Amino acid sequence: MQTKNVILAVDGGATKTVALLFDENKFKIKGIGLAGSSNFTIIGASKAEENLRKAIKEAEGDKADKAVFCLAGIGDSAEDTKRGEEMVRRIFPNAQVYNDGVGAYRATNLFEDGGVFAPGTGSVAFYQKNGVLHRVGGWSWIFGDEGSASWIAKTAITYATRVVDGIEEKSELPHAVEEYFKLPFREAVIKLSKEQDKRLIASFAVIVDELAQRGDPLALRVMKEASEYIVRMINRLKKEGGRVSVIGGVMNSRIIRDEISSLGVSIFYSYQAVIGGLILAGVKMSFEERDMLAKELTQKIYNLPEEELKNYLFINIKSKYSET
Amino acid sequence: MQTKNVILAVDGGATKTVALLFDENKFKIKGIGLAGSSNFTIIGASKAEENLRKAIKEAEGDKADKAVFCLAGIGDSAEDTKRGEEMVRRIFPNAQVYNDGVGAYRATNLFEDGGVFAPGTGSVAFYQKNGVLHRVGGWSWIFGDEGSASWIAKTAITYATRVVDGIEEKSELPHAVEEYFKLPFREAVIKLSKEQDKRLIASFAVIVDELAQRGDPLALRVMKEASEYIVRMINRLKKEGGRVSVIGGVMNSRIIRDEISSLGVSIFYSYQAVIGGLILAGVKMSFEERDMLAKELTQKIYNLPEEELKNYLFINIKSKYSET
Repeated sequence: MQTKNVILAVDGGATKTVALLFDENKFKIKGIGLAGSSNFTIIGASKAEENLRKAIKEAEGDKADKAVFCLAGIGDSAEDTKRGEEMVRRIFPNAQVYNDGVGAYRATNLFEDGGVFAPGTGSVAFYQKNGVLHRVGGWSWIFGDEGSASWIAKTAITYATRVVDGIEEKSELPHAVEEYFKLPFREAVIKLSKEQDKRLIASFAVIVDELAQRGDPLALRVMKEASEYIVRMINRLKKEGGRVSVIGGVMNSRIIRDEISSLGVSIFYSYQAVIGGLILAGVKMSFEERDMLAKELTQKIYNLPEEELKNYLFINIKSKYSET
Repeated sequence: MQTKNVILAVDGGATKTVALLFDENKFKIKGIGLAGSSNFTIIGASKAEENLRKAIKEAEGDKADKAVFCLAGIGDSAEDTKRGEEMVRRIFPNAQVYNDGVGAYRATNLFEDGGVFAPGTGSVAFYQKNGVLHRVGGWSWIFGDEGSASWIAKTAITYATRVVDGIEEKSELPHAVEEYFKLPFREAVIKLSKEQDKRLIASFAVIVDELAQRGDPLALRVMKEASEYIVRMINRLKKEGGRVSVIGGVMNSRIIRDEISSLGVSIFYSYQAVIGGLILAGVKMSFEERDMLAKELTQKIYNLPEEELKNYLFINIKSKYSET
């Protein structure tokens, strides 16, 4: 009989890091931890390592027999991969290291052929055909990341400049920019443009979504444009065959969920990608068991302090029990 | 009687610097010079100063009694203005210093109320009402610069990623990106995204325009979208009353010119903005005299070596005599 283990899975992206400690014998979550970005290509390896350690500590990850890290940046280039792997080895010498998209794929589709589109802070898609994974999108946020939170925020701020310039319909967006970034409009835009803090800009997507839900026509246009891209990408992935899933923070938006509801895809939230790490570590599970685990994870996540949820997951606390 | 002078006017933006030496007595251009960017906020004051000196030397600007500099970056913030002024003082201690948009305004509309939209590497608009200048747009290229060369190139590269991802119609754009930037597609996009060399990216707009003229549907869509914004901005400026002009490198595109031809605006090319510096220096001229001067300048510009035109003005040499 195979020895079962206590496994640490870590999923790290541009905005947050999720650590999960899992008892394979009992098929139970033992601990979870959240922290900020561990995308070392954006924030540097030292700050990324700090956030990884924080999330792992909260999950009591030092008790693990085995660890799997799924991180943004791995696979971007040979140099980035080396840098990311070295960072992980300083924390957990024998860990397996993958790109976070691979983790998202395994969490959503297990080992079956199919596709996943992941609109988080940025966006990327993967499909698997005859067992081989292929990447689609993920072109970085100057030219790509369409349908993601950073794209939603960037587009909304662009439309807000048009309102201020008097070439676009009235909208609450300019006022929302001033309020959210606590600066006069032009200063806010110039500052965001110079600093290019992708995570900070992306966090404004929650406000855009709220304005859209309250009927602001321009905010709604942004959300519809994001949906159009997501729909296009889902149809693209469907062409390759197999089940198609969507996972990421943008899935917290009811507008986006409604727009894609007729497409018959499974919807997952960003923190659930960490389950992919368990699968990559060799934990066997059926789709039903994965669903149970995802539900258990959601319950544990919602037991964390509200501040953590707000900081790392951009969950609208007021409606948290209305979602899965 | 007022003493007339030999005047140096300098216009400097993100892509090029134009220097013009003008004999006010004879109302004649004495010399011109071209150089690369003098936008010190992007390339730094030392490199900007070097380019300013090159253009001025070519124009024999040391013979001037008086100098006016119209530079990108002036007016962006108190700190930027101070830095730009100090740079100019090192070259010409008593020079007047203005934002390049002010120069473009004076070159196109003299001292009359009206508006100007300036799509160059970036884009910005100004209108004058009751003698007071107001700025519109110019939000920098992450959120703004719509209708500009950098916007055209950025949008085309974004659409090219969609073609590669299989969610957009066939187009020559991805191949053109590889050929122009001399790298495999994904590497080119990631490199451009990391380096964010706005001028380099903007220079690809010429290729997009050429592809559009040859009928590439996706390149044509980009050019049409740029036109839509330019039309919107022109109509916005018209609301304030007075004549409205358009000036900038994007005006080299026949597609753009055709799209706005029915709007009754005057069209100027980017290098003609330098005439604004003469006007700011106190040179009196009628609209007719300005037109004569603009024509004389064009003739002199086209006498420069082709390499200079290509490097600094992105003029399609083959068709240079078909334009004014």
